[in-house]
Amino acid sequence: MKLCRFGPAGSEKPGLIDADGAIRDLSGVISDVGPAELSAESLAKLAAIDPASLPKVEGNPRYGACVTGTRQFVAIGLNFVDHAHESNLPIPEEPVVFQKWVSCIQGPNDPVTIPKDSKKTDWEVELGIVIGTAANNLSEADALNHVAGYCVINDVSERHWQTERGMTWDKGKGFPTFGPIGPWMVTKDEVGDVQDLSMWLSVNGRRVQDGNTKTMIFNVQQIVAYLSQIMTLLPGDVITTGTPPGVGLGQKPEPWYLKAGDVVELGIEKLGQQRQDFVAWAAK
Amino acid sequence: MKLCRFGPAGSEKPGLIDADGAIRDLSGVISDVGPAELSAESLAKLAAIDPASLPKVEGNPRYGACVTGTRQFVAIGLNFVDHAHESNLPIPEEPVVFQKWVSCIQGPNDPVTIPKDSKKTDWEVELGIVIGTAANNLSEADALNHVAGYCVINDVSERHWQTERGMTWDKGKGFPTFGPIGPWMVTKDEVGDVQDLSMWLSVNGRRVQDGNTKTMIFNVQQIVAYLSQIMTLLPGDVITTGTPPGVGLGQKPEPWYLKAGDVVELGIEKLGQQRQDFVAWAAK
Repeated sequence: MKLCRFGPAGSEKPGLIDADGAIRDLSGVISDVGPAELSAESLAKLAAIDPASLPKVEGNPRYGACVTGTRQFVAIGLNFVDHAHESNLPIPEEPVVFQKWVSCIQGPNDPVTIPKDSKKTDWEVELGIVIGTAANNLSEADALNHVAGYCVINDVSERHWQTERGMTWDKGKGFPTFGPIGPWMVTKDEVGDVQDLSMWLSVNGRRVQDGNTKTMIFNVQQIVAYLSQIMTLLPGDVITTGTPPGVGLGQKPEPWYLKAGDVVELGIEKLGQQRQDFVAWAAK
Repeated sequence: MKLCRFGPAGSEKPGLIDADGAIRDLSGVISDVGPAELSAESLAKLAAIDPASLPKVEGNPRYGACVTGTRQFVAIGLNFVDHAHESNLPIPEEPVVFQKWVSCIQGPNDPVTIPKDSKKTDWEVELGIVIGTAANNLSEADALNHVAGYCVINDVSERHWQTERGMTWDKGKGFPTFGPIGPWMVTKDEVGDVQDLSMWLSVNGRRVQDGNTKTMIFNVQQIVAYLSQIMTLLPGDVITTGTPPGVGLGQKPEPWYLKAGDVVELGIEKLGQQRQDFVAWAAK
């Protein structure tokens, strides 16, 4: 099952994608796709609905982030060997953990604003995990029982603020609009083997990232179990799991970054794709 | 005005503290103390109420965190010169920013659980800022217009996980129960000069931290303005602003840390005090 949120920013409705790829309106069934709708029980109720019985949404509405009410936007760094290499950093022995501000979350195709004076705004296609039920101290064997599904994330990153402005990465990871999530949350039963999904990203039509979740250093089970040792995972939390090589920082012969007017497209097998116009910062 | 939340965890009611220090029940006026109640307009309405007209709360109920619905729990590191020294780290040239997971937030007097196998659980008395209205790209002159009030925070920290388990601090800062906030949010008008408040913390009755907000490297206005350049601050967000010297990590002749059975008490002038029993981790 593919769940989504569609409509104008701030007033999205819940939807599901039918076999023909059309959005079916779920707003008569649930109020939104958020923490209360992500448990296995809640998802089973939605899966039992015949999509044909739901109103078909006409036209091409905007997609919002595929889940709302996210309280923790957790990020794993350097989770692909080749990306650690291109970042000139050692291969981690355990997951590198940081956070993106939840205020940066937005729809998958909304424009991304390049921060004021930024010269190093970069891209990162990543597999997102959506947590279904609260979790602490999980074993790896139990970890997937707390996962509702998966989605595409662009972990947009400003490298100057990430690495040259203090001791932690958080400053460069959560500028407004830096968290496109969606278009869909695909439930784990429909995804099948989450550790064998191809992933890609292009800038202005030029393919720069090509990877597969099978080369992640720490897999989904390991990441969820590990995080549950150091924090309480909450329903609706989103974990972005690291990017394969090919970011701007790693380009040869020298790094290059995004500028206003650039178009970034990215996708993950079975999880859909995103498209963002990168635009200049302007005072509001 | 002092606002609080009182009652059992998960079903707190909003309250205000009257001139005699008693809790007055605000649940007939507002549903909670959260993002919707923190704007200047909302606070002015509450300030216009005669506390004597509100039901007096008898007994000594538990305090919850003084604000609910916090979506971003932002933390500033190394914000006192002497604490940077005791941490063997350079004095920062701009604010060091990290995050605590919002899932660690709890009442000011709730027990704190020492993480499984932890040997370096530490204390940090800190001034908390509560954001009243959303903010981006603020000037320092405008920053306080977005602040609702202040509170006491114990930025409980596990030093092994903070500094020896990867590249960022976030792992050691947000274990469950590591975010006691309260007992009250004191509105900024009642606090007066927020940069001249004494702050203290004791372990088992032994005073270990003694400081004053006047020696902060970056003051409240600077912190709020700075953060608003890199993120959108949201109503109900809490910023913990760094600790004065005297943490366990900095003890002479050698560091010492908290163990089950220890009692930590802390307070800030005008903002009230907290008391936590530190307890052993146990599987649930």
